[in-house]
Order: sequence, then C-alpha cells, then structure tokens
Amino acid sequence: MPERHKLEAQRLLQGDRRTLARAITLVESSRPDHRSAALGLLERLAPHAGGAIRVGISGAPGAGKSTYIEALGNHILDQGLTLAVLAVDPSSALSGGSILGDKTRMQRLACRQQAFIRPSPAGGTLGGVARRSRETLLLCEAAGFDVVLVETVGVGQSETAVAQMTDLFVLLLSPGSGDELQGIKRGIMELADLLLVNKADGQQHTSAQQTAADYRHALGLMHPRTPGWQVPVLTCSALESQGIAASWETILQCHQHQRTQGILQQRRADQARASLWNEATDRLLGLLRHNPRIRSRLDQLEQAVAAQTLPPSLAAEQLLTAFLENPS
Amino acid sequence: MPERHKLEAQRLLQGDRRTLARAITLVESSRPDHRSAALGLLERLAPHAGGAIRVGISGAPGAGKSTYIEALGNHILDQGLTLAVLAVDPSSALSGGSILGDKTRMQRLACRQQAFIRPSPAGGTLGGVARRSRETLLLCEAAGFDVVLVETVGVGQSETAVAQMTDLFVLLLSPGSGDELQGIKRGIMELADLLLVNKADGQQHTSAQQTAADYRHALGLMHPRTPGWQVPVLTCSALESQGIAASWETILQCHQHQRTQGILQQRRADQARASLWNEATDRLLGLLRHNPRIRSRLDQLEQAVAAQTLPPSLAAEQLLTAFLENPS
Repeated sequence: MPERHKLEAQRLLQGDRRTLARAITLVESSRPDHRSAALGLLERLAPHAGGAIRVGISGAPGAGKSTYIEALGNHILDQGLTLAVLAVDPSSALSGGSILGDKTRMQRLACRQQAFIRPSPAGGTLGGVARRSRETLLLCEAAGFDVVLVETVGVGQSETAVAQMTDLFVLLLSPGSGDELQGIKRGIMELADLLLVNKADGQQHTSAQQTAADYRHALGLMHPRTPGWQVPVLTCSALESQGIAASWETILQCHQHQRTQGILQQRRADQARASLWNEATDRLLGLLRHNPRIRSRLDQLEQAVAAQTLPPSLAAEQLLTAFLENPS
Repeated sequence: MPERHKLEAQRLLQGDRRTLARAITLVESSRPDHRSAALGLLERLAPHAGGAIRVGISGAPGAGKSTYIEALGNHILDQGLTLAVLAVDPSSALSGGSILGDKTRMQRLACRQQAFIRPSPAGGTLGGVARRSRETLLLCEAAGFDVVLVETVGVGQSETAVAQMTDLFVLLLSPGSGDELQGIKRGIMELADLLLVNKADGQQHTSAQQTAADYRHALGLMHPRTPGWQVPVLTCSALESQGIAASWETILQCHQHQRTQGILQQRRADQARASLWNEATDRLLGLLRHNPRIRSRLDQLEQAVAAQTLPPSLAAEQLLTAFLENPS
C-alpha cells in the first residue's frame, strides 16, 4: 500500500495528468479507506506544494465568469505558464451538477494542453466542499501548475471559503447601477483585491465606466483587504478580450506586493492554521450534530431555545454533557 | 439552595436593583458553583424575558458614543420608559477595565432612578464576554426594563456579537471623509439598521451633512440588513441634543416594522438557536484547545501546518483522534 502511494506521488510530482485526476477523485471520496489513502498521499505531497499563484474569482450569476476565465486563462497560457481551474460550488448537490468549472463553457481553454479544468466536487456542506478544494489545490501545486484559479459564485458564504484558500481575490461585476448592483451579497465586495467591471463593450461601455466610478467611491469608505494595496477597479470585456492583459498585470502586481511585503507568507500560514481549526471544528460539530444518542434531545433543546423558554447557555450545557458521555 | 433561588428570582422579577446587580455578578463569575447557580436562576427567569427593545450601538473611538448614549438615554427616560445600558468590550482584560458603560462618562443618566448602567464584564474571550452580556440582557428584561442599549466599540468582531443579541443596530459616525472614514472596520457598516453622523454642530455641520450623503450613496450599493427597511442615514449632535429625538423615533419605527412583519420574532428565534450552537461550539473547542493530554501535540501540529509541511486535514484528523480518546 505505502509503496503504491509512493509511486502515485512520484508520477504526480512529474505532472502526470491522469495520476492527478485520480488523486483528486481519491481526495473527493468519502469512503473511509479512500480517505486514509488520500491523507497518506497529501502528507507525502505537502512539502512540494505552495508554488502557484492562487487566485480566487467570483461574481454574481450573469457577470460573465466563464467567459472571463476563458479569456484570462488563454492569456495566461500565452505567457508560457500552466494553469489549473478549480471551482467551489456547494449548491451543486441540489442542482444536480455544478456549472462552475464546466469545460463546455470554456471550450478553447479546455482543449489546450497546459490547462487543467476541474469542476466543483459535488455535494456536502460548504465546509466539506472547501476542504476538498483546498486539497485539490495542493495536488495541483504538487503537479507543478504555475497558476491556480478557484472560481465560485457570488451568492453566499463560499466566497469567504475561497478567499481563505487563495492569495488574492478578484470580483467580477456587471455594468449597472442602483438595484442591479445590490445582487452582490453584503461583505463580498470587501474580500476583493481587484474589482473588474466586465461587459465594457458596445452599448454598455459608458455604463461600465460609471459603475467602476461608483465602486471606486464606495471602496474609498472601506479598509483595503491587503495592507498597502489600494483595491483597483478596472473595466474589461471578456467577450472582446479587452482589458484582460491589464487585469492579469494587476493580479501579478498585487501578488508581487504581497510577496515583497511578507504578506503572502503570513497569509498562507494564517490560512493553514485556520484550516486546521475549521476542519477540526467541522468534524467535531459534525460528531455533535449527528450523535445518535443526543439526536432527539437536540431537537427538543433547539425548539425550547427558539421559543425562548430555555436560556441558550443552559441548553448548550445539557447538550455537551450528553455528548461527552458518548462522543463517537 | 433552590428555595434561595426562588426568592432571588421573585425579587428580581419585582425589579429590585440590588438583586439584579447580584444576579449579574453571579452570571459573570467563572466559579463552577456560581455557574450552576446562575444557570438555575436563568432557567427560572427565561420565560419572563423578551419584553425589551434591544438596541446595539457602536462607533469608532471618538465618535461620541458615551455622549450620545447619555443624550439618548435621558430622552428615553423622559418618555416615561426604563432603561438598562450594557457594554461588550472584550479588550477590557488588556486595558485593565472597560471605558464602555462607564458611569462617570454618563453622569446625568447614572443619577436617574429609571436607568441601570453596567460596564462590560472583564476579560475572557469575545465568546465569553458575549455570553455573559446575553445573560445579563435576559436578567434586565426579567427585571422589567423597557429598553436595553448594548454598547460596543467599532474596532472588531464584537459588533457582530452585539448585532446577534439585539433587535437593531445603530452605527455612530464622525463627520469627515476619505481616510477618516476608513476607521470603520469592514463589514460593520453592513450590520447597521441606522447610521448616525454625530457632531453635526458648529463648524462641522456642513461636513456632517456631506458625510451623511456619502454614506447614503455607499449604502445604495448594499443589501439592507432588515428586509423592507432602507437604512436611514441621519445626523445629530449629542453635545447639543439635536436630532436625538429623531433618532429614537427612527429606532422605534424600525422596531415597529420588524414586529409587524414578523421579522422580530424570527430574528430572536434565530439568534437564540445561533447562541446555543455558538456556546456549544465555544465550550467544545475550549475543551479541545485546553485538553492537557493534547496540548504539546497541538503546538507541534499548528507549527507544521503553518510551515505547510503537513496538510491541515491530516493535522485535524490527528488532533481529533487524540482528543476523543480523552475528551474531558
């Protein structure tokens, strides 16, 4: 068994795509034996990871994420770099499949040898999906990719998860104002290191410039996410490949800034520590929530607390006492 | 023992201030016997809580929180209502005492019989401070207060904790623009149900109006926190008692809106359920972090993970296995 792992790890480190795809499938599996094999592989590969520029990309549905990633991805490959595209979409279990990271939506990119596109792992909680994407990112780095893009959709907490596994975060916006702009969830704008107003073409060209100006104004009222980095608001047209090179230049500048200021190393160390605690918390709370012996008790307690007849502290106390008697 | 509790509970329900103060001290104590007495008292009183308008108030240092609370509090008392002022300041352990809820800063209010002012519980984690404040709020409601103001400082995560224990949230701002406005932490503006630009007096009158207009513009780009409630941006001068009555009117309107739309009941039930989970999580993670048998192991794992030589998933796995063998 360990001998086979060693061979798999060697092949993956040489950049073998089929081995990489197999390893990702292993990491995504919930079978206990797969899980322990995956952890063995990850342990072996961890020292070889960390070499990529990790970029998170999000935007509301309709902002043109796939078109932008297709355009940006091809530009990145044209610079002689290799690229992996991952996706984090916790809703994929409900919708019966993720449209993020869908190869048919990034046709030209999907055909090029230097690109590797992987859709979101299906199903499970956000914590579970994020954990598997973090591990997949590690595998892609071990396989030698220069750039990893992690795509997500601008409608929920998945942005925070993606921001916590990448070095910088790009938020894609549509031209428009007032009500239309409100499609972006609260808090997400504040994760961004770069705002990009897409569709700055044809009749929407002026509107995109105005939208960019609006966001520049709004951003002036907030702390930048990365110290010393004033978040740029650019426009582009993914459809006409305008402004794509400039957005890549800005991503590189931001990454360079992080690197020279020691921000990158610090951020990645913080992210890794946070992951450790997030995963330990997720698993421990999973054990608590799904413990068969306290299941019926839990429903009762939640109802009493919601009806405000029982103080939450007391309910928490009772829950923990019952759990710790039989934790697993 | 239970007989004494019953008597204490009765006195507190009659509004006896000394009993209330004693009960709060009990709730704030970390001694195990005090804790179990506190839980007994809270269980008895929970059905009598819930009657107050719960208002969170925050603002960056220097925005004039104490002056505003002094002015608003006196206005509330003048309406024939009773008022409790609490504070949440997790930094009070470091600074050797909280300046929030400091009676000497609210002199006129502190002298009036219908007001009850309690500074932040000292020390501990934010989770611990928030838990004690939630319980104190419950005690104040059982003692019959009509309005509870919970003050916090606009520099960290304590706003989120306060927003999770109150019905609505008021953010106090100073006049100014650009860099000065950036003193407000990311995400905090988005918790607000009402923005108040203070110090709209003397030379700063025009500047305050301009600041209010800037924030109105910025808020237009965000979802309102409370459905159907467009966050108003008002100006006031706490020093000259201008705009205080209007701010109270707006708070009442927002509360009325929440009540008639069923938002209030839903929010409080959600908050109570979230508290249950927050407290269970806090305590469970506390047991994990402070488990003497895994202490040295934990340091090792955190370091390896931060140095990125060990994948977080594997570290989490190892941590949990060790913990569950001896959970307490």
